[in-house]
Amino acid sequence: MSDDQRYDVGTLTNFANSLFQVAGLDASRAEVCARVLVEADVLGHVTHGLNLAGPYLRELEAGTMTADGDHEVVRDKAAVAVWDGRYLPGLWLTQAAVEAATLKARDYGTGTIVIRRSHHIGCLASYLEAPARDGLVLEISCVDPSLAAVPAHGGLNAIFTPDPIAVGIPTGGDPIMIDLSASTTSMGTAALYRERGDKLPGAWLQDAEGTASNDPGVLVGDNPGTILPTGGMDHGYKGFSLALILETFTQGLSGLGRIDNPTNWGASVQVRVTDPECFCGVNEFRRQAAHLIELCQTSTPRDAANPVRLPGHSALARKRQYVADGVPVAEGILSQLREWSGKLGVPMPEVEGRP
Amino acid sequence: MSDDQRYDVGTLTNFANSLFQVAGLDASRAEVCARVLVEADVLGHVTHGLNLAGPYLRELEAGTMTADGDHEVVRDKAAVAVWDGRYLPGLWLTQAAVEAATLKARDYGTGTIVIRRSHHIGCLASYLEAPARDGLVLEISCVDPSLAAVPAHGGLNAIFTPDPIAVGIPTGGDPIMIDLSASTTSMGTAALYRERGDKLPGAWLQDAEGTASNDPGVLVGDNPGTILPTGGMDHGYKGFSLALILETFTQGLSGLGRIDNPTNWGASVQVRVTDPECFCGVNEFRRQAAHLIELCQTSTPRDAANPVRLPGHSALARKRQYVADGVPVAEGILSQLREWSGKLGVPMPEVEGRP
Repeated sequence: MSDDQRYDVGTLTNFANSLFQVAGLDASRAEVCARVLVEADVLGHVTHGLNLAGPYLRELEAGTMTADGDHEVVRDKAAVAVWDGRYLPGLWLTQAAVEAATLKARDYGTGTIVIRRSHHIGCLASYLEAPARDGLVLEISCVDPSLAAVPAHGGLNAIFTPDPIAVGIPTGGDPIMIDLSASTTSMGTAALYRERGDKLPGAWLQDAEGTASNDPGVLVGDNPGTILPTGGMDHGYKGFSLALILETFTQGLSGLGRIDNPTNWGASVQVRVTDPECFCGVNEFRRQAAHLIELCQTSTPRDAANPVRLPGHSALARKRQYVADGVPVAEGILSQLREWSGKLGVPMPEVEGRP
Repeated sequence: MSDDQRYDVGTLTNFANSLFQVAGLDASRAEVCARVLVEADVLGHVTHGLNLAGPYLRELEAGTMTADGDHEVVRDKAAVAVWDGRYLPGLWLTQAAVEAATLKARDYGTGTIVIRRSHHIGCLASYLEAPARDGLVLEISCVDPSLAAVPAHGGLNAIFTPDPIAVGIPTGGDPIMIDLSASTTSMGTAALYRERGDKLPGAWLQDAEGTASNDPGVLVGDNPGTILPTGGMDHGYKGFSLALILETFTQGLSGLGRIDNPTNWGASVQVRVTDPECFCGVNEFRRQAAHLIELCQTSTPRDAANPVRLPGHSALARKRQYVADGVPVAEGILSQLREWSGKLGVPMPEVEGRP
């Protein structure tokens, strides 16, 4: 474990909540934004936790993240709805969409909310645990049509974002929490490796001429390369196909996409909730999922030191530890937070301890 | 092009239709089964075309594919329904589910039908074209809980089937038709390479000890290996995650899965239809998708001889050619069909010509 300073989860959430309120968000929106960011930190997704608080506060200051007014309900019909998010905080919009889709799923079996002009929605895994524990299957996907870093399979030009999809799956115990992207890795992960001077675990990138590379340095400079679709050089048509699914669903259903040339940092989002109670019942769903988990967990590992891990289970174990012992925050993130603490007059949280 | 004998698509469909009728299916079911199989052939998915007619006829003969009676509607609530397929022909059940889900999607925005105890559903791409041309987004996924060939990421034991998902996406012209699996390749493709004595294009398999391999021979013998999840050795947690999504949805929602130890050749199936008219309209959906296609098609290719291809576009071009000039059928498939032709007293179709 690192020697980063540790903070109580509630204290840290209250601190972020205060920053967002002073920056102009009302209390309920600030609370959701703070909670979703800190959830990413406690799950171990540190690039998408409080690391994003500074950038979001800058967007609020610049007015490119909207603080006031409501999203517009463009269309609402039975099991589905379209919202225009007006670049309101994406964390709050997404949480509201999960709740609205849940109500629809209870009535219709499934509920789908798509959002255009959401601001950035953070770490997709952050939304999954509570619905999955409640017995709901939740899928969240998003695309930022103002950015591109991933090519078509066999192409050189960046066309897509890494295009994440997160899925929360109820089980007999800890839920399965999948946070998958259509590309071999994300921009944030590649940047982390680059900053550490490390190579990636595989040839997940290509340089501008299309040569496969594990060097995150090929993504920067005058003639940057791209992040390969999932499957890499030899079966990247799989990730390319997944990207096409996620890009067309989010942009085609929400009505805002790359053809509209948006320049704001933002997202077109799809939230789908399925209620197993409207099928064969949540107990049956949990029984089937628990058996699949058992098959995985009792599987002979390729490497005896690395048993098979279910997506989200390490993160949930980490969360339990951090909730008990405090969550570490890296100095690079603390220095950003100190700057905003001073600027907005919100005192820094008390350190809980060092590990 | 091969020197296989070529047949008129309609003639071939009528022939298969007659075989299925003599084997006990009523006229409408036989017609759908014949049409869906021949569609796979004209799209180039030869392992899942008429190659399956013989095995299906054997199943009808043995009674392990049910010919008579209807599927049971276990639950039908608003946008969703659960069917018990009673091992009726999967091609017919799936086509019926697409139609039922479409009616629900028109009313509710989305429609979802899950089926337990379907018989094998053939080539998932075969169902996509007509709905996509009608402006509907169709997703089909299935799992055969009686089979396993793919391990968890990092594990050695076969747990999952290759777990396909097919998605048909309306565009401005030819639809995007994705037929993706959660594993690097399928059992049928690996067998084709093995029969030809070829290696696979990548290290997509592992032997029983967990060593990566491109040799399809590792899947057979006393101590067989497994097909790696999409992403292979270095990022196979992506395919593993996709497998968990597809396995839990199909089995958990339909109520039949691996825990029930089914032994019939069959499938737990999920069919989801989304109607863009209930969101921002199908014209808007097509506009967004057409732009993404243009970005892909105008992308600089890595290899000038291989421009970027959209999923399904080569298959649809092949279909146009085969509809005009006849569809080639390999001798190995013809010899199976001759056997059933003799046995059931259905004359073989007239050859249209050789290319």
